[in-house]
Amino acid sequence: MKETVDAFHRGRFHVVQPKGIGHRSGVDAMLLASLVDADGPVSVVDFGAGAGAAGLAVASRLSQATVLLVERSELMASYARKTLSLPQNAMFAPRVSVLEADVTSRGKARVAAGLADDAHDHVIMNPPFNDPSDRTTPDSLKAEAHAMDEGLFEGWIRTAGAVLKPGGQLSLIARPQSVAEIIAACGRRFGGLEITVVHPRPGADATRLLVTAIKGSRARLLFRAPLLLHGDDGHAFTAEADDLNNGRRVIARRGPSKR
Amino acid sequence: MKETVDAFHRGRFHVVQPKGIGHRSGVDAMLLASLVDADGPVSVVDFGAGAGAAGLAVASRLSQATVLLVERSELMASYARKTLSLPQNAMFAPRVSVLEADVTSRGKARVAAGLADDAHDHVIMNPPFNDPSDRTTPDSLKAEAHAMDEGLFEGWIRTAGAVLKPGGQLSLIARPQSVAEIIAACGRRFGGLEITVVHPRPGADATRLLVTAIKGSRARLLFRAPLLLHGDDGHAFTAEADDLNNGRRVIARRGPSKR
Repeated sequence: MKETVDAFHRGRFHVVQPKGIGHRSGVDAMLLASLVDADGPVSVVDFGAGAGAAGLAVASRLSQATVLLVERSELMASYARKTLSLPQNAMFAPRVSVLEADVTSRGKARVAAGLADDAHDHVIMNPPFNDPSDRTTPDSLKAEAHAMDEGLFEGWIRTAGAVLKPGGQLSLIARPQSVAEIIAACGRRFGGLEITVVHPRPGADATRLLVTAIKGSRARLLFRAPLLLHGDDGHAFTAEADDLNNGRRVIARRGPSKR
Repeated sequence: MKETVDAFHRGRFHVVQPKGIGHRSGVDAMLLASLVDADGPVSVVDFGAGAGAAGLAVASRLSQATVLLVERSELMASYARKTLSLPQNAMFAPRVSVLEADVTSRGKARVAAGLADDAHDHVIMNPPFNDPSDRTTPDSLKAEAHAMDEGLFEGWIRTAGAVLKPGGQLSLIARPQSVAEIIAACGRRFGGLEITVVHPRPGADATRLLVTAIKGSRARLLFRAPLLLHGDDGHAFTAEADDLNNGRRVIARRGPSKR
């Protein structure tokens, strides 16, 4: 199978990805990683990690973070392992591990699969999605990565609520139309939701939401200042988006955060 | 009782409001009115109209609109009538009427109160709210205007769904933390939600949401480009906010609208 080795954070880490098939990580994964703001030795879990881009972005930026990459697909988990074995990633690979598991498993099966209760400081997720009105995905792997089941957020966020320590932080990136499903799934498990609406350029409808929430919080939901990816004048990133994409800036929570 | 006569839309219409008590209309009402985009003879209902500011902003801008101001408070309904009797409003007052009624009434009681089924093209609403963490409201009228009951959106949006024609448009302004309640209340009654997040200035958290939705639509939710009320440099409105506040611009729907 053809594969590529892609540089992120201006070469500070690399990711091995299958070429031509599957979901390829990029800006979404980097924006997701920018939601994790921590100083000390934190434990971070990446749900649906794919080849590991978002989790590695956290590990490369936060020198004391340990990161668990959780991926259901055997193939993508194998790419995550390839990613960790790259010499370019040797600096932080000892702090990163891969767990082949289904994040929607429940109860004892979940714990047995390696997802223990109250164990982590951060969960990050970029849940797969698909939409009947989008162009048809050309292959089954991509279809699996993009398969948005009804209730997907419920299952993923339920597990995030289980594996996080009290006060732990959930961070996710999703499509705008998922806002109600996300808030409903947070329910009474999470509060203090902070939503950053992401627009591709001035005047354009949003294409993504960045959401953080705190386990057990009762703080009210906020809409943060929006994030603009590009200016009016072309394809270049705005300074803020470029900094986020390259690990030079975080989107720090306004309210309590898990640092 | 002391009262004021306040000019809106740079003097194109005026509103009589009690002074020192009750909710005083201002920018929120003007932003709400800017969501109604119509050409021909449309029928518009303003739920919780107060002294009539939002409804009159629609009537003054749209020369063929008829507007029904619905207000539960006897006192505020009397101010709406005073507003309509001002000589400065004579141009459009014949197209505006006041209905003293509770928008949360149901079934036959609602119809008997003057809120008939499938009768109108637009419903606009700025539902009252209160929050335990806000400063205490100093008087009972203000308390009533700001009394946010659990399920308020459900009741108001249910009635909007009843009185609108198929394809009719709901427009509302609300606080950001109400987003989930609004989407839930729209449920299967309304679709094609378009949300404009309103920020007071660059970098600041949102203070309001502007939402439109279409009765019976199944279109997906959108987050529109955000609205910034003020620039970095002080109290002056941005050009866009000033235009909206003065009836010189509308926030036209991206998707189908009731024109």
